[in-house]
Amino acid sequence: MDLKTYLSERVARIDKALGIFLPAEDVLPASLHKAMRYSVFAGGKRIRPVLMMAACEAVGGEVEAVLPAACAMEMIHTYSLIHDDLPAMDDDDFRRGRPTSHKVFGEALAILAGDALLTEAFILLSHPDRGGRIDPGICRRVIRIIARAAGSQGMVGGQVVDMESEGRSIDLPTLEYIHTRKTGALILAAIQCGALIGGADDASFEALTRYGARAGLAFQVADDILDIVGEQDVLGKDIGSDQARGKATYPALLGLEESRRRARELRDMALEALEPLGPGAEPLRQIAHYIVDRSC
Amino acid sequence: MDLKTYLSERVARIDKALGIFLPAEDVLPASLHKAMRYSVFAGGKRIRPVLMMAACEAVGGEVEAVLPAACAMEMIHTYSLIHDDLPAMDDDDFRRGRPTSHKVFGEALAILAGDALLTEAFILLSHPDRGGRIDPGICRRVIRIIARAAGSQGMVGGQVVDMESEGRSIDLPTLEYIHTRKTGALILAAIQCGALIGGADDASFEALTRYGARAGLAFQVADDILDIVGEQDVLGKDIGSDQARGKATYPALLGLEESRRRARELRDMALEALEPLGPGAEPLRQIAHYIVDRSC
Repeated sequence: MDLKTYLSERVARIDKALGIFLPAEDVLPASLHKAMRYSVFAGGKRIRPVLMMAACEAVGGEVEAVLPAACAMEMIHTYSLIHDDLPAMDDDDFRRGRPTSHKVFGEALAILAGDALLTEAFILLSHPDRGGRIDPGICRRVIRIIARAAGSQGMVGGQVVDMESEGRSIDLPTLEYIHTRKTGALILAAIQCGALIGGADDASFEALTRYGARAGLAFQVADDILDIVGEQDVLGKDIGSDQARGKATYPALLGLEESRRRARELRDMALEALEPLGPGAEPLRQIAHYIVDRSC
Repeated sequence: MDLKTYLSERVARIDKALGIFLPAEDVLPASLHKAMRYSVFAGGKRIRPVLMMAACEAVGGEVEAVLPAACAMEMIHTYSLIHDDLPAMDDDDFRRGRPTSHKVFGEALAILAGDALLTEAFILLSHPDRGGRIDPGICRRVIRIIARAAGSQGMVGGQVVDMESEGRSIDLPTLEYIHTRKTGALILAAIQCGALIGGADDASFEALTRYGARAGLAFQVADDILDIVGEQDVLGKDIGSDQARGKATYPALLGLEESRRRARELRDMALEALEPLGPGAEPLRQIAHYIVDRSC
């Protein structure tokens, strides 16, 4: 398989589904729905939805069934970016080269657009013809996995500790606490939900959970490395923005070479976790390479 | 029944359950969990959870089963207050006589505490031993009702239109749009979820839906009146705060006497909706009186 073709086909399907699932721009209040769509369609790489679809595929599931949950995940990711960018938080004027939500719509509407996107995710997950079309027991588990990953002991918790650590020297366990929650939690949840919706048995679910935890951390180590060595385009952040902000990163704590070694190690451990799975897991294997190899 | 005793017994049960369901203050990140608890335990009247329990009771359901959803509702209400109070929004330093979240914890943590409370609601609603203990199909419907009521075409949508209307003269349909969404939607959702979890048949569900829509609007008309005529303690807002902010209110649009007439009319229509229900609906009847009578 060619990963580039695979990814662009997947991203197109996700973008199309997002366009259908999000309230239209002319639905009242139009300003709010415009702001929600502005950020959702701001050039995201859709890495979490792609991983969810790939995990579903890896256990022989029907990829179509996963689209609502995959889009819900992207809405949650987008809300977190809108709130992270706010003046009271990271105070970023640009993301992926476009003005951030509060620069375009004002701070109040940006806060509310984030709130609405988070809520919209759960509307979609519980919609009888969308996320709620699957078995209701699985639907409840999917909602729970996603909510926990996004919550106070998941993504938001990671964001809080990250914020509290700015400009302070932190140790490796704290850095891993931040990363496994701030980015890792949603990535792991995406993979677990893909597995569940795809009908994974317990062994496959466990294997994919191991893959998700390792790939999620690898993604963050690679992200930290790319923040230093360039490739602004790849991850959509400004080069050197972590350093400028005094944020702790793997290269700052471990050095560049040791960080690269660690990223490769995590990639190999992620690949190892996939061994019990068959050829359906090929996209997940290639994505693990894709995440890590450009930073190493 | 004595409504005061009834309410204080219910509030005590809700407060106890909230204390159990919310992550403890020493769970990491402690600052975040402290901020979440600070606002949840800031003297709220628990009107939505009480209504949910009363609706469950009205159809002969077991009140205990409704506690997780009732607490989830209160978490969502609390998150909305935290975000409403932010400098970029209403910029309120005090609520119910206590400093608002951003005054105590800073703006960034206040935003994140709101985000985390909204998310925590869905963690609780999908928890296998709490909100998810009920039939999974009902669980999915409850999540959907609550998410829609809180979302871009519910509470957040009402907040957006309210914000966009400040200082402008609006007509009655716009005012009703704001109120049915900003406060009415969660109140209606509370009653519908109480009915569903209590095992309501279709006819009772419809009757309670009518009650909820009318009582929700009555609550808001009464709130507008109390903003002018006093009783700061009753609804926890500063007297005259709507006027000071140039917010549209019923008394401003209709005059005080016509607003009172309308509140009484809505109360009577809410009571009428309860006619098919038996003595189990007595608390709901008394609450309709309680909501309206002090403003009239």
